[in-house]
Amino acid sequence: MGNPEEIDIDAAERETSLAEEVKYHLPDDKIKEIVEAARQQDSDIVHAALDELSIPDSAELLSKINEYDREELLSMYSDALDPAIFTEMAPELRRTYLSEMPAARIAQMVSELESDDALLLIEDLDPDFQQQIIKKLSAKTRLVLEEGLNFPEDSAGRLMRRELVSIPDFWTVGKTVDYLRTASDTLPEDFFDIFIIDPAHHLTGEVPLSRLVKAKRSSQIKDLVLDDMHPISSETDQEDVAHMFRRENIVSAPVVDDSGRLIGVITIDDIVDVIDEEAQEDILRLAGVDSGDLYRAVMSTTSTRFRWLFINLLTAILASIVISFFDTTIEQIVALAVLMPIVASMGGNAGTQALTVAVRAIATQEISGTNTWRVIWKETLVGTVNGFLFAVIIGFMAAFWFASPILGVVIALAMIINLIVAGVFGAGIPLLLDRIGSDPAVSSTVLLTTITDVIGFLAFLGLASLLLI
Amino acid sequence: MGNPEEIDIDAAERETSLAEEVKYHLPDDKIKEIVEAARQQDSDIVHAALDELSIPDSAELLSKINEYDREELLSMYSDALDPAIFTEMAPELRRTYLSEMPAARIAQMVSELESDDALLLIEDLDPDFQQQIIKKLSAKTRLVLEEGLNFPEDSAGRLMRRELVSIPDFWTVGKTVDYLRTASDTLPEDFFDIFIIDPAHHLTGEVPLSRLVKAKRSSQIKDLVLDDMHPISSETDQEDVAHMFRRENIVSAPVVDDSGRLIGVITIDDIVDVIDEEAQEDILRLAGVDSGDLYRAVMSTTSTRFRWLFINLLTAILASIVISFFDTTIEQIVALAVLMPIVASMGGNAGTQALTVAVRAIATQEISGTNTWRVIWKETLVGTVNGFLFAVIIGFMAAFWFASPILGVVIALAMIINLIVAGVFGAGIPLLLDRIGSDPAVSSTVLLTTITDVIGFLAFLGLASLLLI
Repeated sequence: MGNPEEIDIDAAERETSLAEEVKYHLPDDKIKEIVEAARQQDSDIVHAALDELSIPDSAELLSKINEYDREELLSMYSDALDPAIFTEMAPELRRTYLSEMPAARIAQMVSELESDDALLLIEDLDPDFQQQIIKKLSAKTRLVLEEGLNFPEDSAGRLMRRELVSIPDFWTVGKTVDYLRTASDTLPEDFFDIFIIDPAHHLTGEVPLSRLVKAKRSSQIKDLVLDDMHPISSETDQEDVAHMFRRENIVSAPVVDDSGRLIGVITIDDIVDVIDEEAQEDILRLAGVDSGDLYRAVMSTTSTRFRWLFINLLTAILASIVISFFDTTIEQIVALAVLMPIVASMGGNAGTQALTVAVRAIATQEISGTNTWRVIWKETLVGTVNGFLFAVIIGFMAAFWFASPILGVVIALAMIINLIVAGVFGAGIPLLLDRIGSDPAVSSTVLLTTITDVIGFLAFLGLASLLLI
Repeated sequence: MGNPEEIDIDAAERETSLAEEVKYHLPDDKIKEIVEAARQQDSDIVHAALDELSIPDSAELLSKINEYDREELLSMYSDALDPAIFTEMAPELRRTYLSEMPAARIAQMVSELESDDALLLIEDLDPDFQQQIIKKLSAKTRLVLEEGLNFPEDSAGRLMRRELVSIPDFWTVGKTVDYLRTASDTLPEDFFDIFIIDPAHHLTGEVPLSRLVKAKRSSQIKDLVLDDMHPISSETDQEDVAHMFRRENIVSAPVVDDSGRLIGVITIDDIVDVIDEEAQEDILRLAGVDSGDLYRAVMSTTSTRFRWLFINLLTAILASIVISFFDTTIEQIVALAVLMPIVASMGGNAGTQALTVAVRAIATQEISGTNTWRVIWKETLVGTVNGFLFAVIIGFMAAFWFASPILGVVIALAMIINLIVAGVFGAGIPLLLDRIGSDPAVSSTVLLTTITDVIGFLAFLGLASLLLI
C-alpha cells in the first residue's frame, strides 16, 4: 500500500466504477492485448498482464479466447495459474482444460483448494484420470475427496464445504469468541454461522454470526440458536436444496449424515450456481441443446444437436405422411397446400406457450396435486378463446384470398380444434411426464409438436376433403 | 420450550426430515383440509391451521388455491396474515391480493417490514393506490419509500436494504464489538458485513463478520477491511448487479449514491430472486409468454398470448404467400406439398438450437466483441455439417418414397441451404438485436422462424420448379 502508483490506480478505478454505468467484465481490448502478446511469444508481457488480472477476469479471459490462443497462453503461464480460476469456469470448459494437464499439476491445485472447490475440479473428469490425481494427494485430502465422490452426482454431499465452525452447547458467548480468536488460523476464511454439536457430533443448533456479535459475553450460546434450522441430508438432490434455500430465505444450512451427524455446510453462494445451472438446463433442454454447448468444439456440438434434430425429422415425416393421405384433395384444391402450414404453425406456437409455463412451474414447484387440473383447464380455456379469435381472422382472410367461403369455414374450424388441442397438450404433456418421473423439459417439445402438426394437418385437410370436395 | 408436547412434535419432524427424501412443500392434503374448512366457514379450524403454518407455507397455500377459496380465506383471516407472506409470493399474485385490500391495512403491513420488503410490497401497485397507502404512513417510513420509488425500476436502489451497520474507521475491534452489544436492539436482525464510513458518510471499507469475530480486541478495524470492495451505484440495473455477485463470488455489497455515500446494502438472498426472475423471463419470452402468466386469470392470459400469436400468424401468412408463388408447380407434383413442411420445420428447429445458446450466452455475458464472430462462425459450421447429414437422409428417403431421384436431390439441396441459414441467423439475430440494444429473448424467435420458413419453402419449391418441371 506504500507505493504511490498503486494508490493512484486504485483511486482512478474507484472513480470510474462510480461515475459511469459499470459493466462487470474484462474489456475486449485487454483480451486482445494479452492474446497478441501470447501469439508473439512475449512471455514477459503475458505474465505481467495475467498477474494483474483478478480471478474472475482470468476465468473470463480463458473462456472467451479460441483454443489455439488458449494453448499458447497455457504453455507460457500454466504453472502460475491460480487454481480458483478453474472453479469459476463453465464445467465443459473446465473439463477441456484440465483433461490436457498433467495429473501431478492438478493434484497440486486440488490440495490448495477448500473441499467443495477441490471436488468441483475433479468430479467431471474421466474416472481413470481422477484416480491418477487422487493417488498423488496427501492421505487426508484423498480421503475427503473420495468421500465426496461417493455422494450421488448433484447431491448436497457434493455441494457442501467440510470446513466449518462447530462448538459444544455448554459454551458461553465469551468462551466462543475467545476460541474464534485463538483458533483463527485453523478456521475457514468465510463463514456465516456457528454450529452447535453434542459429543457424538450430532447437530443440535445453529447460531448466525450476527446474533453472536450482538450477544453479551456472559450469554449462553444455546440461548442464541435459530428456532428453525434446516438440516439437509447429504443425499438430497441439489435442485431440492436450492428450492429449500429460496423457499425459506436462508443463507446457509448444515448438512448431516444418516444419523444426524454434522458433516458440512452449504452456503447460498453455491446455491446461486445451482439455480443458474438448473434454469439454464431447462431453457436449453426445451430447445434440444446440451449445457456447455457454447464451449464445445464444432463436431461435438454437431453430434449432440444431430440427435434432437433427428427426432424432429421423424416428427416432420409423420406429418408428411398425414399430408400424403390427402394428396388427391390437394391436387384438386392447391389452396390447401398454401394454407395448411398456418394451422400447424399456430398450434405449435400456442402449445409452446402453455408448455413453457407448465415446465417452469414444475421446476419451481409451483404446481402440485392441488392445482394441476386447474392449470390444464385454464390452458384449455385460453386455447378455446384464442382459437375462436384466430378462427375469425384467418377464416375471413382465407375466404377472401381464395374467394371461397367454405374454405374460410374449413380453416376456421381447424384453427379452433388445433388451438384447443395445443392448450390441453401444452399443459398436459409436461405435467404427465413429471408425474411419471421423466424430465418435462427434455421431451415435451417434441411430443407437443408431433401432436399439433398431426392434428393441424389432419383437421384442416380432413375437413377440407369432407366439406370442399 | 418447556412444553413436552411441542418438543415431541419437533423431534418427530426432525426424524422425518432426515429419514426420507424431503420435498420442501406444503402437502396437498393440508391444503385440501384448510380449503374445506374455509368453504364451511369454520373460522376456528382456519385460524388454528393458518397460525401453525410457516411464512413460506402460507405463501404456498395462498398461491395454489383458486380465487374463490382465496377470497373466502382472506375474508376470515386477512387481518392475522403476516406481511412477510406477501413478500414470498409471485409478483403477479401479490399485486392481485393487495389491490383488493384496504390502503390502511397495507400501510400497517408496510410499516412492519424492513425497507426493501416494504418497497417490494407496494412497487407494483397502481400509482394512485400507492399514494393512498403512502399518505397513511409515518413521516419517516414515507420518506424512505418515496426515495425508494424514485430509483429506476429493477435498479440496485430498489433492491437494497437501508438497515445496515456502519462505523467510523478509527475504532478498534473491541470498541466495535462493544457497540454491537450495546446497540443490538437498533441493529438489523441479520447482517454479514460491517461498513466503514468517514464523517461525511462516504464508504471507505467493508469488514465481513467472520473477520471481525476472529480478530483480537486490540486490532484496528481498518486493518480488517476487504482488499476488493464492490460498491454498487444505486442506479445500476439489477441484472448487472446479479452478474457482478456471481462473477465476484460475493455475498453482500454496499450501495452508494453519486457522491460515494453509503446508502444501503444488497445481500445475496435478494440476488437469488433476481437471477431466478431473469432466467425465468428469458425462457418465457422466448416462447412469447409474460412472467406471472401462471397467476393471471383466463382473459388476461388470453390477451397477452394473443399478441404473440398474432405476430406468428403474420409470419405464417408470409410463408403461405411464398408457397402460393409455386401453386402451379405443386398442382403438377403434389409430392412437393407432402414434403415441404419437412425442410421448413428442420430449419426452425436447428435455428432455435443456435438461437437459444446465443440468447443465454448474451444473458450471462459470456459473449462479447472477442467471441461474437467465432460463435456465429461455429453455428454456421454446425449448420453446414448437419445440413449435409440430413440432406443425405431425407434425400434418399424422398427419392425412394416418390420414386424420383431428382426430387431427392431437390429436398437435399433445400435442406443444406436451410440449415446453414438457420445456423447463421440463429446465432446472428440475437447478437444483432443485443448490439442495437433490443432484448434478444423477445423478438429473436419470430424473426428466425420467418426466415427459416420463407427460405425453407422458397429453396425447396424454387429448386423444384427449376429442376423438376
